[in-house]
Amino acid sequence: MRNVTVGLGPRSYPIYIGSGLLDRLHAFVSPLAPTSITIVTNEVVAPLYAERARSALAGVAAATAVVQLPDGERHKQWPSVAHVLDSMVQARVDRRGVILALGGGVVGDIAGFAASIYMRGVRHVQVPTTLLSQVDSSVGGKTGINHSGGKNLIGAFHQPSAVVSDTDTLKTLPARELSAGLAEVLKHGLVADAGYFERIVAALDSLRAGDGVALAEAIAGSCEIKASIVARDEKEAGERALLNLGHTFGHAIEAMTGYSRWLHGEAVGCGLVLVAQLSHAVGSLTASDAHRIRAAVASAGLPTRIEGLSASGAIETMRGDKKTDAGQTRFIVIDRIGKASQRSVPQQVVLETLMAGGFV
Amino acid sequence: MRNVTVGLGPRSYPIYIGSGLLDRLHAFVSPLAPTSITIVTNEVVAPLYAERARSALAGVAAATAVVQLPDGERHKQWPSVAHVLDSMVQARVDRRGVILALGGGVVGDIAGFAASIYMRGVRHVQVPTTLLSQVDSSVGGKTGINHSGGKNLIGAFHQPSAVVSDTDTLKTLPARELSAGLAEVLKHGLVADAGYFERIVAALDSLRAGDGVALAEAIAGSCEIKASIVARDEKEAGERALLNLGHTFGHAIEAMTGYSRWLHGEAVGCGLVLVAQLSHAVGSLTASDAHRIRAAVASAGLPTRIEGLSASGAIETMRGDKKTDAGQTRFIVIDRIGKASQRSVPQQVVLETLMAGGFV
Repeated sequence: MRNVTVGLGPRSYPIYIGSGLLDRLHAFVSPLAPTSITIVTNEVVAPLYAERARSALAGVAAATAVVQLPDGERHKQWPSVAHVLDSMVQARVDRRGVILALGGGVVGDIAGFAASIYMRGVRHVQVPTTLLSQVDSSVGGKTGINHSGGKNLIGAFHQPSAVVSDTDTLKTLPARELSAGLAEVLKHGLVADAGYFERIVAALDSLRAGDGVALAEAIAGSCEIKASIVARDEKEAGERALLNLGHTFGHAIEAMTGYSRWLHGEAVGCGLVLVAQLSHAVGSLTASDAHRIRAAVASAGLPTRIEGLSASGAIETMRGDKKTDAGQTRFIVIDRIGKASQRSVPQQVVLETLMAGGFV
Repeated sequence: MRNVTVGLGPRSYPIYIGSGLLDRLHAFVSPLAPTSITIVTNEVVAPLYAERARSALAGVAAATAVVQLPDGERHKQWPSVAHVLDSMVQARVDRRGVILALGGGVVGDIAGFAASIYMRGVRHVQVPTTLLSQVDSSVGGKTGINHSGGKNLIGAFHQPSAVVSDTDTLKTLPARELSAGLAEVLKHGLVADAGYFERIVAALDSLRAGDGVALAEAIAGSCEIKASIVARDEKEAGERALLNLGHTFGHAIEAMTGYSRWLHGEAVGCGLVLVAQLSHAVGSLTASDAHRIRAAVASAGLPTRIEGLSASGAIETMRGDKKTDAGQTRFIVIDRIGKASQRSVPQQVVLETLMAGGFV
């Protein structure tokens, strides 16, 4: 088992990564001395793991309930949060109850947000079961839901009390979702660590084949990068915004396709290719590095080009994104592999990048 | 103008109390350099003050919008929060936008909660226009909404950036609402300061008559008591819970009467009488002090007895209240005037207190 710590003073917490951890949940949750546990999961994950998780938690709290949500990003909306809250009120969960998020990023976001607003905040434990959530979304305390006007517009910063990533759960993960997780792994390398990026690119075949050792290494590596950035800038006043690399384009792709055609990680993969191109266009990134990034995204099994979406529609959508500040859409651009920075980009360059990338 | 500071390190903020402050909002809000201002108010307050507030804020931000909610505690529900959020998304409010809550406690709670979850948190300024919100609810960062299962079950701790209490707004306040605010003022004295309690009791006639000087003194006095408790225990891990004195009974009265028959402060007034009786029954408070408390509540123009509600229903309702912990309903009891403490009380004593207080 690997162990990464997110250092946030009194709100520091451990990330456990390894094989067989789902059956050892008792050990990770009982130190919290919860009065009750509300396992939040979805219709796809529940049949696989809900009963195992519940059994593993036997005796930890006086009551353990399972709340099952529908699957999919399009359900990351208020009614899902309300369903969790209603179940908790019904079960008379008190302030010392713990929510356990068992599933991918959507489940983690909904469960974490519910934890942040139930009785003005109860604790939550993230038990991510997808690569994307193990390497990225379960760590750092961002929780939230989508609004028809934009992704993750409603939410809170609410750090978990622990993150437990059982790499065995990746064995049941569809290949497409494994690739989606790799988009965030590549992003971590691009933002913070060129050596890590190269190691990941070299290991892409093993990672896509589900090699447990390679996966645990990538999860721990990504968690270390993210933990160190979050520890320095928890509320995204500065540096943490770099982790949005590729996400401004990615969110636009998701929003314009109704959060259903592309997985979040796929949209981010394509967003990384677009932002590499943009970074080259503004003179930050060499053409050969932009090419290497495109090749890495392709080798990860991700789309590098999405045809036919409206370029002007994308610009309009990006203007409504959270990362708009004082009316100016700002981009995280890649300075070189392993280093990113924030800057405002002329709209004409954004438009040309989109057109060159398959937008119309 | 009086000035009280809530000392919370980097999240410290000022409370301004005085006459004519509504027309000087510019001075209090412009230091925040907001990109936009969303004034959240309700249908009763808007015709009185919304345009004055908007005019006073001219030039402070690029855009100032007014969002009007229906009036009343029964609208302190998710749809009101969603309405505020929808308006903000529509107006493309960014992370540096500020919400200004213009109204009573319900408006303040909804606006503050919306601020806490819009883009994972934007700033808010409280401009309370009722006595209850000026002396209590606008200070301390508790925000939230009701759930059919209980009051304030959904919410967040989210401190305002400033509180501006214009005592002139109390001139338009119905007598019943002025009395409701006095319930919280009496509570502050009972919890923390016997001398303050005596001064308030002596000034009740001037306060009910709307005497500006007496009111400003009471508001500043109550804010000082609350600010010092909040500074020591922001998230209600201990001492802050004492400010819930009378609220366990009060919330039960409100819930059982559909949040419509009694104002929050009226329910709290009656709750203070009940809890004084309870405190006497468990041997903490003398009969004569319990009597003085009842007399003070009556002199404030508040109900001291509510007939006909179900005692067993009240106990059931209190069990669902946030202040239940690990299955045990705990009460804040009065040790003596000026000092309160938390303790578990035998259910039989609670029942007898309710029956003696008009419950059936």
